[in-house]
Amino acid sequence: MVRQALRPADIEARRFLAGRMADAGLDVAWDPVGNLFGIAPGEAPGMLIGSHSDTQPEGGWLDGAFGVVCGLEIARAAMEAGIGGVSAVAFSDEEGCFQPLLGSRCWTGAADLASVAGAIDAEGRRLEDAIRSVPELRSASPVPVRRFSAFIEPHIEQGPVLDDAGESVAIVTAIVGMTHIELEFIGDQNHAGTTPMARRRDAVRAFVRYAAAIDTAFGPGSDTAVWTFGRVEILPNAVSIVPGRVRATLQIRAGALERLEAMAEEAVALAARQAGEGPCGIIARRTVALAPVPMAPDLIRILAQAAGDIGVPECRRMRSGALHDAAMVAGVLPSAMLFVRSLGGRSHRFDEDSSPEVLVLGCRLACAAAGRWLAARAWP
Amino acid sequence: MVRQALRPADIEARRFLAGRMADAGLDVAWDPVGNLFGIAPGEAPGMLIGSHSDTQPEGGWLDGAFGVVCGLEIARAAMEAGIGGVSAVAFSDEEGCFQPLLGSRCWTGAADLASVAGAIDAEGRRLEDAIRSVPELRSASPVPVRRFSAFIEPHIEQGPVLDDAGESVAIVTAIVGMTHIELEFIGDQNHAGTTPMARRRDAVRAFVRYAAAIDTAFGPGSDTAVWTFGRVEILPNAVSIVPGRVRATLQIRAGALERLEAMAEEAVALAARQAGEGPCGIIARRTVALAPVPMAPDLIRILAQAAGDIGVPECRRMRSGALHDAAMVAGVLPSAMLFVRSLGGRSHRFDEDSSPEVLVLGCRLACAAAGRWLAARAWP
Repeated sequence: MVRQALRPADIEARRFLAGRMADAGLDVAWDPVGNLFGIAPGEAPGMLIGSHSDTQPEGGWLDGAFGVVCGLEIARAAMEAGIGGVSAVAFSDEEGCFQPLLGSRCWTGAADLASVAGAIDAEGRRLEDAIRSVPELRSASPVPVRRFSAFIEPHIEQGPVLDDAGESVAIVTAIVGMTHIELEFIGDQNHAGTTPMARRRDAVRAFVRYAAAIDTAFGPGSDTAVWTFGRVEILPNAVSIVPGRVRATLQIRAGALERLEAMAEEAVALAARQAGEGPCGIIARRTVALAPVPMAPDLIRILAQAAGDIGVPECRRMRSGALHDAAMVAGVLPSAMLFVRSLGGRSHRFDEDSSPEVLVLGCRLACAAAGRWLAARAWP
Repeated sequence: MVRQALRPADIEARRFLAGRMADAGLDVAWDPVGNLFGIAPGEAPGMLIGSHSDTQPEGGWLDGAFGVVCGLEIARAAMEAGIGGVSAVAFSDEEGCFQPLLGSRCWTGAADLASVAGAIDAEGRRLEDAIRSVPELRSASPVPVRRFSAFIEPHIEQGPVLDDAGESVAIVTAIVGMTHIELEFIGDQNHAGTTPMARRRDAVRAFVRYAAAIDTAFGPGSDTAVWTFGRVEILPNAVSIVPGRVRATLQIRAGALERLEAMAEEAVALAARQAGEGPCGIIARRTVALAPVPMAPDLIRILAQAAGDIGVPECRRMRSGALHDAAMVAGVLPSAMLFVRSLGGRSHRFDEDSSPEVLVLGCRLACAAAGRWLAARAWP
């Protein structure tokens, strides 16, 4: 699945969704950053269910889309049953084509669209130009958060825990924190045949030394403390040239804020220490910094009851190692997440998959939780 | 300087050179792979002087071009003096836009143009299509090697030896050997938040471990034994994805054949050992393999005498850490090289430079050697 935010395939998918939302009797609303809502008619604030419908550059068919389709189906069924009170959402650019969690961040007010309008994607497109190219967004108005009273995000686990345990669904208790260290290794570009090893300032060697030192410093990791050099760029990247620059991103995630901060501080200190020893300079800049986010206790309890309703009384509770829109929405609404089993724990790749049975079970779990939430409020 | 082989700037430069060659009274001859000769009229085989006129993707103004202009100037002066007997050459694609040393390799018969016609450059262009796009090459015939009796390639040193020593010129005794190990690290692309460290098969971590092990295994290197990971490609190269593949080239150069072979064997063995330990697979394939090439003793002696003629009686002798067209031509003609001092030892970059004085001295050294060579043969 290749459906990056605000590119033609993404917009086409959102138009398809908008049509299905309208068919279900929901009020369709695009907001200025491309979030798409299908809102149950009526004044009382109901349950919002959904996720994102954009994908990674090489993504799977369920990451995000599963939660969006759950939201649509539960909202549709609630309308059909004459109850209503459930709305659906497809957030924009969760995967960070322009900025991670862009849609939910703007919707919740954590970011201001005007201040991120200059963000640029890998194709060099500016966010504001991408938005301007979509007719629906030119006239869009914000969708008030107060239209809703809670948020549930169903999602595939994207990891191996449920698959290893042979379980189908889990309730998320918290979303781990994440930080990025942007690194630049500054060497001296030169001829790879005539420059003796002792004279070199080789940026790839400096990166290799740093990455090995990080692995040593961080130790074996844990289920929720992980780190990744996912993006590494070598300049000029030619066989016969000693590399003059390497740019890399070290992504760190951890379930506990103290651990996350300690790892980030260690990464920055290691860069300074190695740069001090030479021969290459290192610039280390901390960019993204998101604290771990606990899910709403009320909703966790309701999800646990709902799990009993659908025949999974011993439903597992776990932290989410991945970041999700719920981390943003939790700032403005009681929010929760549920996970369904990912085959082989695979995600962010084309062969990401889950069995039809666990997808249906996850949708039923969200539906049962929404029903309990509305019932507890004597809906409508 | 950006003048990659068989692209418009390269062809334009060769047409300019062809005009200057004709102005000097030389017979201009393009050969089928784009080598350009300015041949002194007459039947007796004279001295050939030159180098290449293409550049690296980010190259300097002297790498190659210095030797070509020396050849043109010495041939022109010899014509003007009524002696002749000196021809000039600008070889094609020494820098390996399609294949390293492509022009001299084809001219000397070490490669057959038909067998390399499918080579593809970084823009995806096929060599045969690039050749077909140049009118001069469509009707070109091979230039027989027997038109010449010896070859001298003047070149900038591209390294720090002369600059460190405060010397202007050197005579090259041999060109070091070179081999490439093409490496592919095969991991498992996955989500960077949800995959615990112990479960990962991270291709970047595998590369880092391998590159660190190579540095340990190869030790401190020497003036002529060097190695470089100049090209490293990460897939999919996204911040939130555990990298599934890394492709890298390890280039090894050494002055002694035994050392070169031992390093190459160690690199392949290390890959097999690490792959056996897991978690990532490694494919290591040896591609380029060029043995060290000694320069012709007769020409080295003549260059040493010529150095005395121009006032540098204690002229340094050294090996070339860089590969040059002379390594190919040495297979079919007595060949030699001379080096001129590179400021700061810088090359393969835009700020590569040498002082006008050393450039003139290098040209005079080649000229004096050509005169001695012709005189020894009672030219014409």
